[in-house]
Amino acid sequence: MRLRSLRERELIAAIRKEFAAADDDLLVGIGDDAAVIGVAGARSLVTTDLLIEDVHFISTLHPPFLLGRKALNVNLSDIAAMGGRPRFALLGLGLRPDVGKRWVEKFFAGFKEAAAEAGVALAGGDVSAADKICLSITVIGEGDDIVRRSGSRAGDLICVSGSLGDAAAGLRLLKDGCELGKNKKADSLLRAILDPAPQIALGMALARRRLATAMIDTSDGLSVDLSHLCEESGTGALVELAALPLSPELRRFEKDCMDLALHGGEDYQLLFTVSPRKLAGLAALQNEFQVHRIGRMTRGEGIRVIDDKGRKRPLAVKGYEHLK
Amino acid sequence: MRLRSLRERELIAAIRKEFAAADDDLLVGIGDDAAVIGVAGARSLVTTDLLIEDVHFISTLHPPFLLGRKALNVNLSDIAAMGGRPRFALLGLGLRPDVGKRWVEKFFAGFKEAAAEAGVALAGGDVSAADKICLSITVIGEGDDIVRRSGSRAGDLICVSGSLGDAAAGLRLLKDGCELGKNKKADSLLRAILDPAPQIALGMALARRRLATAMIDTSDGLSVDLSHLCEESGTGALVELAALPLSPELRRFEKDCMDLALHGGEDYQLLFTVSPRKLAGLAALQNEFQVHRIGRMTRGEGIRVIDDKGRKRPLAVKGYEHLK
Repeated sequence: MRLRSLRERELIAAIRKEFAAADDDLLVGIGDDAAVIGVAGARSLVTTDLLIEDVHFISTLHPPFLLGRKALNVNLSDIAAMGGRPRFALLGLGLRPDVGKRWVEKFFAGFKEAAAEAGVALAGGDVSAADKICLSITVIGEGDDIVRRSGSRAGDLICVSGSLGDAAAGLRLLKDGCELGKNKKADSLLRAILDPAPQIALGMALARRRLATAMIDTSDGLSVDLSHLCEESGTGALVELAALPLSPELRRFEKDCMDLALHGGEDYQLLFTVSPRKLAGLAALQNEFQVHRIGRMTRGEGIRVIDDKGRKRPLAVKGYEHLK
Repeated sequence: MRLRSLRERELIAAIRKEFAAADDDLLVGIGDDAAVIGVAGARSLVTTDLLIEDVHFISTLHPPFLLGRKALNVNLSDIAAMGGRPRFALLGLGLRPDVGKRWVEKFFAGFKEAAAEAGVALAGGDVSAADKICLSITVIGEGDDIVRRSGSRAGDLICVSGSLGDAAAGLRLLKDGCELGKNKKADSLLRAILDPAPQIALGMALARRRLATAMIDTSDGLSVDLSHLCEESGTGALVELAALPLSPELRRFEKDCMDLALHGGEDYQLLFTVSPRKLAGLAALQNEFQVHRIGRMTRGEGIRVIDDKGRKRPLAVKGYEHLK
């Protein structure tokens, strides 16, 4: 799942309604990070994403090796957000006639490296001509304990991994002509947008230890992704701005770093909620993973924030149109 | 799998080589109609296809309802070609900004009808903006007895279902301005290209009864698809031209109907081989399905044909560039 226009979100809602028809083996259908299906008596997680040139990436700004990695990794992130273990990938590749052999080789080298890191095998795919580069990735995983978006209760602690807003800041730098390897201080932000790391181990730990009551990945930005958790769980949320994890690099390069942390997408971190009865488990997790408490789920609707003067105010749910 | 350029076929061969790395649970990888994977101890079939506007379909010539049906059905055909039962679909949909709500509704109505006919549930998907309509479909199925492309032996009978060349003839009519419903005699050809029917029941019967030694669907045309069976099985083939199933409509509308039957793609029929020891089983099958014997597999390489004067000659393996 990535940042979407209103039209796209409306369409997904319509499809979800239209295709709600019951299949006993469709355990989790449209509306979560991945679907859960029963095939031949066993449970699989499946997710698919389209990445289209000039909509989701700009080929002149995205080195093909890193694009190959990212194409797979954003899908692995959807499996991670359910607490699953990714196993197999399918790749549909639409190529402009002028894309050269070297580009294709580097793209596949990156894809292969990311697959090896995650223990994922390429099971199949399709190749086609196209006017713009078009990447369609499907990932199939497994997981006995899965975490949905809908399990939060009022009072649950809201947590997020890594830091927020780095990818959006990195995209700004990229569009301003900044290149990877030219400025060490900018590199971590550029890496965040060009080469995000799916949080598979953290997702699996949260599921296996039954720590997370609900989970999603931060692909659309904190406000949008948290609103999904709230909608699916039937809760509101209260976020402490002072608790948001902002990287030193984000603070250095961006004046409006709080805006990027709240609404910038593509970080592919995990946003999840934990019951307050599991504080000990959360503390143990924080010894192993970079996880931050940023607020709590509330009764009622909508997201509010507490600012540095202790005042509460509603938070607008909005995403950046990254490449526009 | 659909008709491909030389570049696309070379790329698939390179990917297949590059990603041949072993995963014990990747039971059938790249190079067959669908992959066979083991997830959570159970076996699944998976296949994915990209359909891109002006490469695989022309949106002004393809009614959206029928495009929705075809987008799913060509993928179901890949599962059918392994003898599997399709269960779940994922849909990635890239839409031009000017595609209206009505088009989208009709597309989904068609997709939904085809899914219901096959007992397939839509498990998830993705929606995106795009410059050209881009459809990415993944289908997951199950099947204990699967049929690969590689099991033929010299002496096996070559069989094909339905008729050959109708879809290619239909595409010609379509491009000449012929519309569905305007000329009853042309309609079956137009249906063949606009609304092909996946041969799921036949594929499953062939697998369950262990009748087929190898199988593929006729998506690229007889010469290309038969050459795949020969390559994977290590055989040659001898085809009797007089035995090719040509529909009366094809004969009526096309002077070079033999050329279309040999090389026209998109029929989505099943091409399979049967051991000569199973003639009784084949005869029983022919009582239930429209299945034709068209030749036999041979030792050595390449495909030869026997013409109406009993002369044997080599057959060029070539596909039509349909939309060019």
